[in-house]
Amino acid sequence: MDENCIFCNIAAGEMDTDLIYEDDRCVAFHDINPQAPTHVLVIPREHIVGIAEAKSDHRDLLGHLMLVAADVARQKGIEDSGYRLVLNWGDDGGMAVPHLHLHVLGGRTMTWPPG
Amino acid sequence: MDENCIFCNIAAGEMDTDLIYEDDRCVAFHDINPQAPTHVLVIPREHIVGIAEAKSDHRDLLGHLMLVAADVARQKGIEDSGYRLVLNWGDDGGMAVPHLHLHVLGGRTMTWPPG
Repeated sequence: MDENCIFCNIAAGEMDTDLIYEDDRCVAFHDINPQAPTHVLVIPREHIVGIAEAKSDHRDLLGHLMLVAADVARQKGIEDSGYRLVLNWGDDGGMAVPHLHLHVLGGRTMTWPPG
Repeated sequence: MDENCIFCNIAAGEMDTDLIYEDDRCVAFHDINPQAPTHVLVIPREHIVGIAEAKSDHRDLLGHLMLVAADVARQKGIEDSGYRLVLNWGDDGGMAVPHLHLHVLGGRTMTWPPG
């Protein structure tokens, strides 16, 4: 855990953030600047800066994050209507917090291109 | 393999598609309608319709797709500038081909919201 990382603190339960899902490896919560009626972040408890810094040891964890994202979408009632998963890296990607996080967006028609 | 699925056919080498990466579980190639200077698709060889139909057995494969996406971005020279990974499900997500595929977009500043 990086004590200066806001997402590490959220995962540790040290912020006043409502977790809509948690297990021993990840947590999910609503984005504070939602870009769609449903906008959830799924993050690992482990402090991985972003996808470009993930190692082969993280393969199972990364797959788990995707399956949890799909579960969260099901739980939020947007599986039938559809949704978009987004993961940003670096400046061009628009990565805002340097702790890997997977966006789940739905509840409206997502347009193309994706930003 | 679904013989009627264009992405299954691409993965099987039966289309005239230039593969920029391949291994025993996935392939990567350029999107035919690029939305950014670099726009690559990473797809599993296995015919999974989309993320909402992925099972826990697919966890390792899904993580592999994400690590390959990061490798492809590195290979394409957009790791330092940044990039966005996108996975669509259903109508609201804008899923165009019903075979799971991960978009890798970079080479320009990706805007927010992501579509």
